Amino acid sequence: MENDILIHNGILLTMEDGLPVIENGFVHIKQGKIADCGPALPEQIRTLAQNPARQIDACGGIIMPGLVNGHTHTPMSMFRGLADDLPLDLWLNGHIFPAEARDVNPESVAQWTAHSCREMLAGGITTCCDGYFLESHAAKAMADSGIRAVAGQGVIDFPAPGVPDPVKNIDHAKDFIEKTSTLSPRITPSLFCHSPYTCSKQTLVAGKNLAREKGVLFQIHAAETRAEPGMIKENRGLSVIAYLDSLAILDPDTLLIHCVWLDENDIGIIAKRGCGVIHCPESNMKLASGVAPVPDMVAAGLTVGLGTDGCASNNDQDMFSEMDTAAKLHKVVRLDPCVMDARTCLKMATIDGAKALGLGDITGSIHPGKAADIIVVDTTGLHMTPMHDPYSGLVYAARASDVSWVMVEGKIRLKKNPPLHPLGTDRPAGSYRPSTR
Amino acid sequence: MENDILIHNGILLTMEDGLPVIENGFVHIKQGKIADCGPALPEQIRTLAQNPARQIDACGGIIMPGLVNGHTHTPMSMFRGLADDLPLDLWLNGHIFPAEARDVNPESVAQWTAHSCREMLAGGITTCCDGYFLESHAAKAMADSGIRAVAGQGVIDFPAPGVPDPVKNIDHAKDFIEKTSTLSPRITPSLFCHSPYTCSKQTLVAGKNLAREKGVLFQIHAAETRAEPGMIKENRGLSVIAYLDSLAILDPDTLLIHCVWLDENDIGIIAKRGCGVIHCPESNMKLASGVAPVPDMVAAGLTVGLGTDGCASNNDQDMFSEMDTAAKLHKVVRLDPCVMDARTCLKMATIDGAKALGLGDITGSIHPGKAADIIVVDTTGLHMTPMHDPYSGLVYAARASDVSWVMVEGKIRLKKNPPLHPLGTDRPAGSYRPSTR
Repeated sequence: MENDILIHNGILLTMEDGLPVIENGFVHIKQGKIADCGPALPEQIRTLAQNPARQIDACGGIIMPGLVNGHTHTPMSMFRGLADDLPLDLWLNGHIFPAEARDVNPESVAQWTAHSCREMLAGGITTCCDGYFLESHAAKAMADSGIRAVAGQGVIDFPAPGVPDPVKNIDHAKDFIEKTSTLSPRITPSLFCHSPYTCSKQTLVAGKNLAREKGVLFQIHAAETRAEPGMIKENRGLSVIAYLDSLAILDPDTLLIHCVWLDENDIGIIAKRGCGVIHCPESNMKLASGVAPVPDMVAAGLTVGLGTDGCASNNDQDMFSEMDTAAKLHKVVRLDPCVMDARTCLKMATIDGAKALGLGDITGSIHPGKAADIIVVDTTGLHMTPMHDPYSGLVYAARASDVSWVMVEGKIRLKKNPPLHPLGTDRPAGSYRPSTR
Repeated sequence: MENDILIHNGILLTMEDGLPVIENGFVHIKQGKIADCGPALPEQIRTLAQNPARQIDACGGIIMPGLVNGHTHTPMSMFRGLADDLPLDLWLNGHIFPAEARDVNPESVAQWTAHSCREMLAGGITTCCDGYFLESHAAKAMADSGIRAVAGQGVIDFPAPGVPDPVKNIDHAKDFIEKTSTLSPRITPSLFCHSPYTCSKQTLVAGKNLAREKGVLFQIHAAETRAEPGMIKENRGLSVIAYLDSLAILDPDTLLIHCVWLDENDIGIIAKRGCGVIHCPESNMKLASGVAPVPDMVAAGLTVGLGTDGCASNNDQDMFSEMDTAAKLHKVVRLDPCVMDARTCLKMATIDGAKALGLGDITGSIHPGKAADIIVVDTTGLHMTPMHDPYSGLVYAARASDVSWVMVEGKIRLKKNPPLHPLGTDRPAGSYRPSTR
């Protein structure tokens, strides 16, 4: 038992089917994997609870799977707050593209990916799905940070950092996938075709063929802005999704990001093909892209995860805020307070995100055999008290700063002292009071 | 100088006209009031900077006015997360009203108001505008907490906690206002008529007359839900705002809360009468009330503040999150990324909120003669780095947990150690890099 770790004395949310709430749960970790979990600590591992070096006392907090950030561009933290509140073309062409041309290089990609990973780990994100240029440098930084990641090499039919000649973009991606496949068991290579309007038909098909050949995830921004469907319709005579489907790109190993401008038929196609979808509500709001029909996607049985998008368009990588926003945005847009309840949003941020990324067997829930990607969320904050329901507390009140322990594959990546409260106040004790409803 | 305090070594945002950014600013506080502020520390107070007991080192953070929460029901933190994701009538009649009947009493109002005040102070809120029943107990708790508050006694034409016979609701409010006027210089009494559909014409007129006679703020929820305009139209033949105007209720000492369902004509009436408006985006989203036409109100010159609403409908009292949401919500609803820029949202959360509450001469900005209601926001967090623009940083990236000092009327109410970062990471140094745009 010398490498075993016990997490105990907390409210356990496994995020497994039925979404049980185990009021005083434990997780037993062996060799980076979950060996056992449940309500009653088995006799044979009780000694771990007495060993300060081998136990994590959740102190009544919530023990849950680490969050899955389904979409980000990690190096773009270098552009956080560089330009805001601007029309899309001025923001992109006047600020972001020139800044990328000026500032993006192997060193800056490595530096700001490392920064983003620390930001994400500190906020309870144990898995991210990334896409950018010079992705080999991002992948290395992600591997070093301790996070679990899908690393997507960007493919675009324009000169890009690391690929000055776009004719070579697929060859470059092939090289990236081959080299990255042995980098770390936590890093999964992928290919990220930027969009249906910045990649030609040939590039999209060659990209998907390469991804299929290598058995990796094919990522693409799809139907993000209001202008996109018109553009594709005019040039291809089809909706964005129908166009991608006509190229045989849609299957369970394709991840569609944003999916704001879809109709019923598009949702039907995605359901039929089994693609994962990543919803990025804060980015879609800040850039005024539109509101994705997520309640309809969920109703149609699509696997929908949540993502922060890159820091140029959000401006942080905070999945607590993203869950809260997702829960509230669709309610007000539909004038229906029942859509996107707390449990649905928390599933999107954990197990459903993991499934969309093709990592559903590895992470996203607490289940024997899965990787020990686990966080503890402190519930003693004034803003979390009282807590009648832990799902509601996590989605509607918790902050990224409430995360007190973070573990990826059994390795501790964050450990905080109990939070500080205002002068002269007592910490509320035993604040969890299960609702009777 | 023995009671003087100096805040220095930070980015000073005064929130005064023109919204200057003073890159290395100071604020000098005497007897709880702002004596002086600016970029260059005057010779005669330089010794304060050397006196550990008399100086607050902002450590490069942002020095700014405390936030103004323009609308809350402080005791309702007791119902945080009690019921979510439900239809409005089931939420109110099935959960909130029965819980109020069961749990609201003088002791619980005092206890949970104290809790809410600690939550708000910890998150940088130095002024709140409250309304509830048994408000004398809330007012006492707010006075004791150190926060600045407008305390509104609730008036409704139904039996309510503390006022079982609604015939006496105005007399009760009169008594409250008289007794509370001498409670504390930080507490301003007020009268809160619940809504145009729960108060009769007679109650509304008598309430406003009492408020006028006593010189206090008259608060009312107005045009919050989609059903309200139809109800008022059917019974009164007018829009909600036109109805209130027909009763001579609208003037600069009336505060209209929510104002979701307004048309152009209503906005014109409010502009003409000079009422303040409080926008509560997260509550309006979570309860699916609708999206208030705030960009139109701002364009029409209305004084619009921001509020969290009570914890039963949000579920926290976090003005950082409220600013972020306000900035993003209207962009996506209007499909215009330029509306509700960071500066506008920060003004709503400070000086414009103070003006709406009738406290614009006392708080809401940093200006000689005003009360020293000041906060310092730490900017070294990973999620705040880099910071090209402090307004953007505060609205789009900062969290309530980044607040490191809170002062109300010169008294320190929160002091935090530097934040903790993930294991093995360095704190980013000198992260502020002014944008050149």
